[in-house]
Amino acid sequence: MTKLKGNAVIGQSGGPTCVINRSLVAAVEELKKSSQITGIFGARHGLDGILKEEFIDLRKQSKSTLARLLETPSAALGSTRKRPKAGDEDCTRTLEVFQKYDVRYFFYIGGGDSAQTANTLSALARSKGYEFRTFHIPKTIDNDLIGSDHTPGYGTAARFVACAFLGDDLDNRSLKGVKIDVVMGRHAGYLTAASVLGRLDDESGPHLVYVPERLFHMDRFIADVDAVYARLGRCVVAVSEGIATGPDDKDLIVTQAGVTMLKESVRMDMPRDPSGHPQLSGTGILADYLVWQVRRGLETKYAAQKKKLRIRGDTFGYLQRSFPSAMSDVDAREATEVGTLAVRFALASDTDGSVVIQRKPGRKYAVKITCAPLAEVARGEATMPDHFINQAGNNVTQAFVDYARPLVGRLPNAGLLQQTLVPKRRT
Amino acid sequence: MTKLKGNAVIGQSGGPTCVINRSLVAAVEELKKSSQITGIFGARHGLDGILKEEFIDLRKQSKSTLARLLETPSAALGSTRKRPKAGDEDCTRTLEVFQKYDVRYFFYIGGGDSAQTANTLSALARSKGYEFRTFHIPKTIDNDLIGSDHTPGYGTAARFVACAFLGDDLDNRSLKGVKIDVVMGRHAGYLTAASVLGRLDDESGPHLVYVPERLFHMDRFIADVDAVYARLGRCVVAVSEGIATGPDDKDLIVTQAGVTMLKESVRMDMPRDPSGHPQLSGTGILADYLVWQVRRGLETKYAAQKKKLRIRGDTFGYLQRSFPSAMSDVDAREATEVGTLAVRFALASDTDGSVVIQRKPGRKYAVKITCAPLAEVARGEATMPDHFINQAGNNVTQAFVDYARPLVGRLPNAGLLQQTLVPKRRT
Repeated sequence: MTKLKGNAVIGQSGGPTCVINRSLVAAVEELKKSSQITGIFGARHGLDGILKEEFIDLRKQSKSTLARLLETPSAALGSTRKRPKAGDEDCTRTLEVFQKYDVRYFFYIGGGDSAQTANTLSALARSKGYEFRTFHIPKTIDNDLIGSDHTPGYGTAARFVACAFLGDDLDNRSLKGVKIDVVMGRHAGYLTAASVLGRLDDESGPHLVYVPERLFHMDRFIADVDAVYARLGRCVVAVSEGIATGPDDKDLIVTQAGVTMLKESVRMDMPRDPSGHPQLSGTGILADYLVWQVRRGLETKYAAQKKKLRIRGDTFGYLQRSFPSAMSDVDAREATEVGTLAVRFALASDTDGSVVIQRKPGRKYAVKITCAPLAEVARGEATMPDHFINQAGNNVTQAFVDYARPLVGRLPNAGLLQQTLVPKRRT
Repeated sequence: MTKLKGNAVIGQSGGPTCVINRSLVAAVEELKKSSQITGIFGARHGLDGILKEEFIDLRKQSKSTLARLLETPSAALGSTRKRPKAGDEDCTRTLEVFQKYDVRYFFYIGGGDSAQTANTLSALARSKGYEFRTFHIPKTIDNDLIGSDHTPGYGTAARFVACAFLGDDLDNRSLKGVKIDVVMGRHAGYLTAASVLGRLDDESGPHLVYVPERLFHMDRFIADVDAVYARLGRCVVAVSEGIATGPDDKDLIVTQAGVTMLKESVRMDMPRDPSGHPQLSGTGILADYLVWQVRRGLETKYAAQKKKLRIRGDTFGYLQRSFPSAMSDVDAREATEVGTLAVRFALASDTDGSVVIQRKPGRKYAVKITCAPLAEVARGEATMPDHFINQAGNNVTQAFVDYARPLVGRLPNAGLLQQTLVPKRRT
């Protein structure tokens, strides 16, 4: 194998995470060590920046700048939602820019779509006879990449969600009622499932967990809430934004929320995401709709018992991927490692690929970080396996907890009062 | 002065905070030191627990339980929204329970309403000739107590909001668009104002800040967003949940949101808080409405320029008062101090009162914690002074930043890349 020399480009793509800059910094530091690498260029906003030839000089960053990036959420280079298909003009143009700038190494930090982009560019370069190494560096809060046990970005987002429910459940204990919290996740329920990781005792919420892997039934949902409320006088619910009654956009509960609640004129303006699907994040309508359904379904019953139901809904929104004070140590470490190893793999081999994390068997948490063909990681999205979800489809299993707990690291050392009561006095 | 001996009751009331348990633990530890105190009783859910004679024995808590409470958000004893007026049956009954249990010291941790309750009980005990000390221990995330420079609970909630905007602004830099975030605060804009504390440079968001202290004008708001977007290609906005066009419930923007967006049948079910006012927290409709207004107002204009506006809204919700990983060191310390000092004041004097925090003049942050008459703290709610809000009513001033920065403690050490670009190549 001849040593391929030239410039390297790094880009960040898709929804950012709190640790994606760790992968960036690690890749930069590793590239700096190699005599095969001349310039280290950061593409501004991923593919958009490449097409516009906007590159940040990553060799010119001070030590303190790079050190601060380790604590900095979101994509420091800027991100993009651009997802070119094979044969698109954008792909041809990207390769032309790479040739023009003598770019021989390309590292794309992103999710499945970014692996797909890297794969397309890899094939195109090969077909043109341009010698070129490309590696996909994984990130996603959704934990939905094929071939990995888990993905950098997930652990920290999961820790945020676990902390959020830990706090919200304590809030709900102190002022009782029904609380419904909507968590990110269109197809994969991993992030919503993480809501259970901060439970302090058998009565801790979330008491119910609904993920997109199972069809959602409004009547069962209301009956579930009713049963928990009857038992505990309160109920905390975790719901994925992607819950649906079937496979189509019209089956999404968020679509049904719009149809049921909004005036026709307003509904026509309801936002869609860049792929034309209904927008799930950045709106609170799903939580509001579920609150309204529970109120309608249960209020009469409780009014008859002279009880007033307190029902609230929250949508955790973009904080799940951007809140800077909830980093998982394990996730931070692995995000660094995938960045470092992507560079090592690219420099050491003559094949392109994606970095994947495998878990070693055994009681103690340990991983092996290796690489997989780009096409394999690019071929779709993973969802939660069946045995992580309970039979009733309204909670997660101990198998999920065992899987996820090592990924979020240490949680706040919160606790409850011992309920030793003062004996009542007669008079 | 004769030394008053007997049992002590501690209660927590109103919306919880992340540091309210620090005040509880500090009061317990200080009470344990005194020979005047026999039992230390925790009222379950504040006044509700007193009326039901449900007291947790706080002397029976292990060291590790109390240590964990320091890291535990929300009210460990449970909270209540009960706000009895002078002359209410509940007040008479409370004093009867206190007499029955030989309660001679009552500490109520809460906001202005709790000071009011303590004041009512104080007056009632005096009129009945029952020898009794009551102290109000301040807490509120709204920072709206009269007589204090600031209130325990605010610093941590403000740190959460500052961190949230720090992260969300970076997210918005990486995927540009308009982002509108709704922050808690019905009358006081302090928490929303804290959104600016994590700004990293002159282009950092939030670029616009709207607080309830100023009337809200939808047209000006849309024009403000348009101006920022034209300048930066993006815009992050912080909005208080209590923004309104006038003083009445119908003037609240959240009310107008319901009227404009929701079907009649749905709107009739819209939730109200226990005081009968429209519910502001636990719903996402205000953010959704503002997003919809900006889209309607600007979409045509940008479509003409072939630009697609990306607009999102989030409502931070209950996480602002319950998220466990964002504590302000200063706030944590002061929440402890007000608990300790309330007990010392009660034991050392024969007057009742409320603990207040005053800031000492000088460049270095320092406070003096003293006490004020209950009636003074109970007399209403404070809002932000005029000089904390800019002339246009769409941002805060440096005076606010100087005031608030010491209260939130250290923020994450985040940073931005240096924008040194790689020179463009000709061919």
